[in-house]
Amino acid sequence: MGEPVVGIILGSTSDGPAMDPCTEELEKFGIGYDYLVASAHRAPEKVAEWAGSAEERGLEVIIAAAGKAAALPGVVASHTALPVIGVPMKTSDLGGMDSLLSIVQMPPGVPVACVAIGGARNAALLAAQIVGAAHPEVRARFRALKEEMARA
Amino acid sequence: MGEPVVGIILGSTSDGPAMDPCTEELEKFGIGYDYLVASAHRAPEKVAEWAGSAEERGLEVIIAAAGKAAALPGVVASHTALPVIGVPMKTSDLGGMDSLLSIVQMPPGVPVACVAIGGARNAALLAAQIVGAAHPEVRARFRALKEEMARA
Amino acid sequence: MGEPVVGIILGSTSDGPAMDPCTEELEKFGIGYDYLVASAHRAPEKVAEWAGSAEERGLEVIIAAAGKAAALPGVVASHTALPVIGVPMKTSDLGGMDSLLSIVQMPPGVPVACVAIGGARNAALLAAQIVGAAHPEVRARFRALKEEMARA
Amino acid sequence: MGEPVVGIILGSTSDGPAMDPCTEELEKFGIGYDYLVASAHRAPEKVAEWAGSAEERGLEVIIAAAGKAAALPGVVASHTALPVIGVPMKTSDLGGMDSLLSIVQMPPGVPVACVAIGGARNAALLAAQIVGAAHPEVRARFRALKEEMARA
Amino acid sequence: MGEPVVGIILGSTSDGPAMDPCTEELEKFGIGYDYLVASAHRAPEKVAEWAGSAEERGLEVIIAAAGKAAALPGVVASHTALPVIGVPMKTSDLGGMDSLLSIVQMPPGVPVACVAIGGARNAALLAAQIVGAAHPEVRARFRALKEEMARA
Amino acid sequence: MGEPVVGIILGSTSDGPAMDPCTEELEKFGIGYDYLVASAHRAPEKVAEWAGSAEERGLEVIIAAAGKAAALPGVVASHTALPVIGVPMKTSDLGGMDSLLSIVQMPPGVPVACVAIGGARNAALLAAQIVGAAHPEVRARFRALKEEMARA
Amino acid sequence: MGEPVVGIILGSTSDGPAMDPCTEELEKFGIGYDYLVASAHRAPEKVAEWAGSAEERGLEVIIAAAGKAAALPGVVASHTALPVIGVPMKTSDLGGMDSLLSIVQMPPGVPVACVAIGGARNAALLAAQIVGAAHPEVRARFRALKEEMARA
Amino acid sequence: MGEPVVGIILGSTSDGPAMDPCTEELEKFGIGYDYLVASAHRAPEKVAEWAGSAEERGLEVIIAAAGKAAALPGVVASHTALPVIGVPMKTSDLGGMDSLLSIVQMPPGVPVACVAIGGARNAALLAAQIVGAAHPEVRARFRALKEEMARA
Repeated sequence: MGEPVVGIILGSTSDGPAMDPCTEELEKFGIGYDYLVASAHRAPEKVAEWAGSAEERGLEVIIAAAGKAAALPGVVASHTALPVIGVPMKTSDLGGMDSLLSIVQMPPGVPVACVAIGGARNAALLAAQIVGAAHPEVRARFRALKEEMARA
Repeated sequence: MGEPVVGIILGSTSDGPAMDPCTEELEKFGIGYDYLVASAHRAPEKVAEWAGSAEERGLEVIIAAAGKAAALPGVVASHTALPVIGVPMKTSDLGGMDSLLSIVQMPPGVPVACVAIGGARNAALLAAQIVGAAHPEVRARFRALKEEMARA
Repeated sequence: MGEPVVGIILGSTSDGPAMDPCTEELEKFGIGYDYLVASAHRAPEKVAEWAGSAEERGLEVIIAAAGKAAALPGVVASHTALPVIGVPMKTSDLGGMDSLLSIVQMPPGVPVACVAIGGARNAALLAAQIVGAAHPEVRARFRALKEEMARA
Repeated sequence: MGEPVVGIILGSTSDGPAMDPCTEELEKFGIGYDYLVASAHRAPEKVAEWAGSAEERGLEVIIAAAGKAAALPGVVASHTALPVIGVPMKTSDLGGMDSLLSIVQMPPGVPVACVAIGGARNAALLAAQIVGAAHPEVRARFRALKEEMARA
Repeated sequence: MGEPVVGIILGSTSDGPAMDPCTEELEKFGIGYDYLVASAHRAPEKVAEWAGSAEERGLEVIIAAAGKAAALPGVVASHTALPVIGVPMKTSDLGGMDSLLSIVQMPPGVPVACVAIGGARNAALLAAQIVGAAHPEVRARFRALKEEMARA
Repeated sequence: MGEPVVGIILGSTSDGPAMDPCTEELEKFGIGYDYLVASAHRAPEKVAEWAGSAEERGLEVIIAAAGKAAALPGVVASHTALPVIGVPMKTSDLGGMDSLLSIVQMPPGVPVACVAIGGARNAALLAAQIVGAAHPEVRARFRALKEEMARA
Repeated sequence: MGEPVVGIILGSTSDGPAMDPCTEELEKFGIGYDYLVASAHRAPEKVAEWAGSAEERGLEVIIAAAGKAAALPGVVASHTALPVIGVPMKTSDLGGMDSLLSIVQMPPGVPVACVAIGGARNAALLAAQIVGAAHPEVRARFRALKEEMARA
Repeated sequence: MGEPVVGIILGSTSDGPAMDPCTEELEKFGIGYDYLVASAHRAPEKVAEWAGSAEERGLEVIIAAAGKAAALPGVVASHTALPVIGVPMKTSDLGGMDSLLSIVQMPPGVPVACVAIGGARNAALLAAQIVGAAHPEVRARFRALKEEMARA
């Protein structure tokens, strides 16, 4: 794997296991990534700094996972011009409907690309699609994956 | 009205009319307030600065109103030790359920005191209850209001 | 811990374990509290009396936890001028959406400060923020906690 | 119409028009009723007194209508041994889902008989069914109404 | 226990355990009951006959429990002039929201008195409140129960 | 148009306009239909008789439209071996979510084929697909319609 | 069992166990079926081909089961003139509400006959009702089943 | 504007006005786009062909807008390796919750980047963020827009 081009940020260490399919998929693609656990609410400056410097650190897309009042993806998006993918975490009371609405219902001006509740693997694939424009080998592998899935 | 003790922040100028009952109620109480329109997503630094300096500017409680993926109250709370009251704005598609969950479902460590969807007036009254501890004339007026309501 | 300044009321003994993080957090803050289990529906007079005398007993804020048609926080608020924090209990059928709406959707005139479903710890922290105005040592400890969280 | 046997209580004067079909239906049945507008949250003592004396005033069943965090039916039920019918008012943001859950999800020990959102007429008919046991002319008229509906 | 005055009907044998608190409570009240398992959808004639003859068999109120597209309470109500209490069963996919809406949202003309999801015990208590008008010993026991609950 | 092969039943005259696209589509197909307005709750015997004799009257499929606690499609299905299409009517408070769940969540043994909220036209098309097996000219016209749509 | 007249398609092998009651019921009816696992999203051409040739392969009705953004039933319906029955799979986060809305809310022109969440057995019965028009022995068995259920 | 790099596809002409902010925003960015109205359900081959050839036609990202059982974004994604942005249209009955879940809850393997209900402008901005990697003038303009918003 080369230099990190994808940044992954999680709102809580408890979101780690649910996001494993994301890192696994990036690794299969050979896509380098940067990984941070930091809450938008508990560590706002750390998040702002990490997101604000993402582009100059060479990142091309960011994946942000959070649950409940999941402000993290939107907060990250407020600090960067890079595309931000939001992953709503399943919650034990409302099933993740709270996380989903908190991530997807962004106001005009600051988009977040939301995937399914618990959609860790798809977040990686969407990142691969996005970085694929500049990395033909990633795009090629994505096409191969689509063909495999069609045959399975 | 004396010095501002309540800070009011709105995510969008379009939230202004819905928040008028809040400022009207504070004025009836004679409570001074500070008023800013700034989006957590579009103007994160302005919000961080305003919230981060709120306590030293003399504010005792903050009211934050926002709609949809309403990150503003939580973001404000992440930058201050003052109590933060969140007001979920009614939305034209989901009725405000999105705003409500985005505000109320805060993670452990950073509370927001959420009132009803469109609960502008109650946000003012809750602020009055909170500042009432240090301002006996506010507490007295709150009690008088309760008595009036009971008689009405 | 000094004299009780926070009142905690639960609608049912079955809500006890879910509220343990609330009392634990208050204890860490050294905030004294008063604790009662009494249902707004089954013991309305006990609740009215407890809430009605809360202020003269020296309480500064009340935390009320209840589930389902969770009337308790609103009923308590109807009997006191103190700020009331409502904690919606998770329910086995609707996940706590019923408790949440029953607590947060208060009518104009009688606010309740609602925290997340199962937000016991945040209820304590919000109470600490509120009493912090008059108790500088509590405010100081809250600030220290924020700093710890930001570093974690 | 004879002496009031049905008590009607509304949480707000704004609920009046939505409840007109209830009083109209009771009048068609010739059932006397008692009518009060009083909020469980703003006028708790008035509600407690009215509900607590309902049975000795000759009432046989109570209809309570309220919206949002609609505590009124449950609060009335907490103060009387009479059956209480709850009518959830439609709300402008959540359509009445909040009112419905706040009324129907009562805890064990204190039932409320909930009708549909905006079910003012059915509340009257349910009251007629209940008082019909002791008032054969009401039961007879209810049967006639059923036959009319079946023919219509 | 005397002659049955309450009729209990369940849409499925699988609803039996969830309704045990209902029969247990009626037994504590010494209220005789009639018990049938019959689906409105699978055995419509049996249900129509049972409901249609309920009044002449001496029943005074009916309790109908059903889940999912819970038509049973409404179908029973369509065949009798007696008051019908509906108990929405919890469901494994939607938590009982489907049962609740199918029972409570009755159209004008045919009311059902809906209790909480899984509100088996409250269905019995509501039945006791309704039959209490004609059975002073039941009303007396209900009052005693309220007093017990208030002291508990 | 030949003899009726589709039966249409509406729970209320107020559902008429919403169902006009259904009859219009059937007329375009040249499919004869039988039309009745009768509530499952207000006129249960009329519904039972109409549904119970549908097959011997030559009907091949039934379309039942109803709103709120929309029992009609399921009740019709309980009285016939013919396939029953349910059309959930939009409601003014819950948007038709109540109608949808009341129609689609049928218990094992008695299916209803549910279309979209307000899906009047699709109900006609689904009926055309079903009767198309025995009426080749209907199937042919359905195919032509699909081709037209694909070109449009 | 004769030649396949029902086509069954599942979006994922993980939906297999939930659909067993469907195949079991068809087998009891002696209805031959065709069975494929293919995702509308991962194997769109396979699905298009299978659906597009269904009618000429002798199928009379199709059952399509899928979960989450359950596009499969609608995609199948877009490729055939046969009636398509959709079975929304229960999901671990939203209980199947996502699957249900994705299947039932079809746009005008392309109907899907939706059954309950997890309604595998009812899908088979609805298929039996539909093929029953052309297969009198299936219709006869369906009637026998209804009689058995009524007696049970 | 240069050659089209963004493809826009709408499920229905009725979605046109709601998507105007999307095309207006792309035009402000000087981003060329391709525009098609074609339903995934009514014109599946046209959609498959358009999506399948998108990459070779020079498109870099696709925006797909649809309402209700909004299969279009997922169907487009099934036919291309390009990133696909889904825009859930507001619906008159469920407010767009149906469109949202149908778009966002994509199964593993085929991601869709979902924006808010009615999030037409944000779809354009997200597309600009994605094509910005390969088009520095777009990225520059995006940064300028962020700065404008922060100052506003």
